[in-house]
Amino acid sequence: MSDAATLSRPDVRTDFPGLLTEDGERWHYLDTAATAQKPQAVIDAMANALGKDYATVHRGVYSRSAQMTLGYEAARRRVADFIGAKEQEVVFVRGATEGINLVAYSWGMANLREGDRIMLSQLEHHSNIVPWQIVAEKTGAKIDVCPLTDDGLIDLDALEDVLTERHKIVALAHVSNVLGSILGAKRAAKLAHSVGAKLLLDGCQTAPRMRLDMNELDCDFYVFSGHKLYGPTGIGVLWAREELLGAMPPWHGGGAMIEKVEFERSTYAPPPQRFEAGTPMITEAIALHAAIDYVDALDMESLFAHESGLAAKLRDELREINSVRLFGPEKSAGIVSFAMEGVHPHDLGTILDEENVAIRAGHHCAQPLMQHLGVPATARASFGLYSDESDIAALVRGIERTQKIFA
Amino acid sequence: MSDAATLSRPDVRTDFPGLLTEDGERWHYLDTAATAQKPQAVIDAMANALGKDYATVHRGVYSRSAQMTLGYEAARRRVADFIGAKEQEVVFVRGATEGINLVAYSWGMANLREGDRIMLSQLEHHSNIVPWQIVAEKTGAKIDVCPLTDDGLIDLDALEDVLTERHKIVALAHVSNVLGSILGAKRAAKLAHSVGAKLLLDGCQTAPRMRLDMNELDCDFYVFSGHKLYGPTGIGVLWAREELLGAMPPWHGGGAMIEKVEFERSTYAPPPQRFEAGTPMITEAIALHAAIDYVDALDMESLFAHESGLAAKLRDELREINSVRLFGPEKSAGIVSFAMEGVHPHDLGTILDEENVAIRAGHHCAQPLMQHLGVPATARASFGLYSDESDIAALVRGIERTQKIFA
Repeated sequence: MSDAATLSRPDVRTDFPGLLTEDGERWHYLDTAATAQKPQAVIDAMANALGKDYATVHRGVYSRSAQMTLGYEAARRRVADFIGAKEQEVVFVRGATEGINLVAYSWGMANLREGDRIMLSQLEHHSNIVPWQIVAEKTGAKIDVCPLTDDGLIDLDALEDVLTERHKIVALAHVSNVLGSILGAKRAAKLAHSVGAKLLLDGCQTAPRMRLDMNELDCDFYVFSGHKLYGPTGIGVLWAREELLGAMPPWHGGGAMIEKVEFERSTYAPPPQRFEAGTPMITEAIALHAAIDYVDALDMESLFAHESGLAAKLRDELREINSVRLFGPEKSAGIVSFAMEGVHPHDLGTILDEENVAIRAGHHCAQPLMQHLGVPATARASFGLYSDESDIAALVRGIERTQKIFA
Repeated sequence: MSDAATLSRPDVRTDFPGLLTEDGERWHYLDTAATAQKPQAVIDAMANALGKDYATVHRGVYSRSAQMTLGYEAARRRVADFIGAKEQEVVFVRGATEGINLVAYSWGMANLREGDRIMLSQLEHHSNIVPWQIVAEKTGAKIDVCPLTDDGLIDLDALEDVLTERHKIVALAHVSNVLGSILGAKRAAKLAHSVGAKLLLDGCQTAPRMRLDMNELDCDFYVFSGHKLYGPTGIGVLWAREELLGAMPPWHGGGAMIEKVEFERSTYAPPPQRFEAGTPMITEAIALHAAIDYVDALDMESLFAHESGLAAKLRDELREINSVRLFGPEKSAGIVSFAMEGVHPHDLGTILDEENVAIRAGHHCAQPLMQHLGVPATARASFGLYSDESDIAALVRGIERTQKIFA
């Protein structure tokens, strides 16, 4: 079954103050792929961290600062545990976008040169395209684009054909933010490594929906955002294999990432500190810890079953509506993109908004994928752990009403 | 008078839940230069933004996202108004450290080359040294260091002597985080501009303590952190003159900072969006807005009078204690560094902690200044708007007790 009863706690929705409208009505929030609503536990953790517990980290000799440092580093350990990694491999960044930029600027500038190739895919989010374009321009490396299968998966057979030893990095979405398609990550790792390339996975849509184990995945870099994982804005995670991280030069310079500063020459701290210049996102890390505790208690396998089940059900319902065109594969991690004949996705979104249904309409920061699909934009419904069949029903009702308005 | 009565609201302290110990006793928090405690209004703004108001910005077609976008951009306008600038000149960054890195990487990489010089001062925070070292190494530019006067001010007479037309940028602390010394900013701007150099000011310690007007200051770049301005962690501000910002190439690549992405080539949005890749620090911006409203209502001139008055009083009291050596100028913006003969600052800090007095002990991310002062570390007491004479009395009692322990 694909309703909220697949979760161990069917009343989970009441934990989220953001899921009510101003009038206290139910808000059918179907934009969790853009950002997730926050459970009260996360909001409380943030409020305590900014309030009665507040102090800086790393540098205070008084006990509250020592406590805060323990809290900040406990958040790092919690992230490491959540993704099957070592704590010294976990770098706190502003979000997934900064994580990819960090890899591109630090690892990329040190390891890419003229003649090298960077392999992306046709469905990447701009955050996994633009940093590579910037670094390609600076280094002389070139970008290749792995095509998609007809149903919108990254085509690993094609990847196998086109990968060469000139490819130094392969950077792919673990789950597409537009189509919900799930990468065959282990095969991608094997293919990348077979030509000596590193594999970076953009895990923004995976971290909130699938159990992750860095060893099992066998990738080299992994990034995700806190705010998509039911945590706060302003924080994300870069994971990198320990030996890779250790060999990477610093990027942002500043306090806390140094060992010794002299005007003639500074020396840098080991990772992860080397990559965390300045006062870090202290309270955000602590609230992210609370978010991970929250989702983990619900069990990641259950979340995946729940949201992919809702996506399958929505696809079934939309297939019944003649004017709707569905994109992407049947098996989606919880994200469904579609178009309505004769109705711009923005108009659909606006009409749905009147009925307390929130979807995303646009290019979803994936313009090259839109070109591939042959549309300027799609409508996208994406599920979260708090979604259930009543959200689907409200969406379908709204689409039917829109159809009448535009008939 | 230099007690809390200099503020329009003497009960201001009760607005700050962080100013009580776990046991509900008064916490003598004298580390505001590291990070400020947050008024309840900031915590509430954050909780609402993460809770009932939460949505992403810029990309949603539903009304809550439109509301959130208005809130995010209203925060930008509030910052602009607070510092006498235009809203399109305000870039939200993670903190001052990232702001300086942005200028170094974007403006610096585009404008510095072999033979050029970068002028810093002996009292700079690591965050205003290391980014320039990294960019100097990449561009072949060299760093010069402006000396200090005997009482710890940046020596502008010396600056005038050493500046040449090879200097392309002068980057200085507006207020020293160690000594509280206040830069003669307008003269520094005149000197920098007289040789055709740009002036960057690190305003971390100024933004919470002095009324700022970018036009009046006549600098080119200004940075400060939200968490030192009674706002949240994870956000800060880079201000840059409009025409400078418009000519600067992007740094971080990703969503929201682009106009059009194709694999062959991407085009970039105008500033400030060009420099805000990815989902921004949405709730942090909204909470920063609340922080600025809070401090502004207390009047920045009053805050300066209050905190500089407390600093003067503390200096007077410490001068009475034989074993104490004072650093820095008599006129301090609210920060006092000192050393106790025969007592390591860390030991002093630890003993004070037992008495609910929190000071900072260490190099304060300013190792070159420590070398200049001839000490490995100082003890530092720094005041905030909530500080008053009872905090000074508690500190002095603690120092006297420490003196007895080490006698």
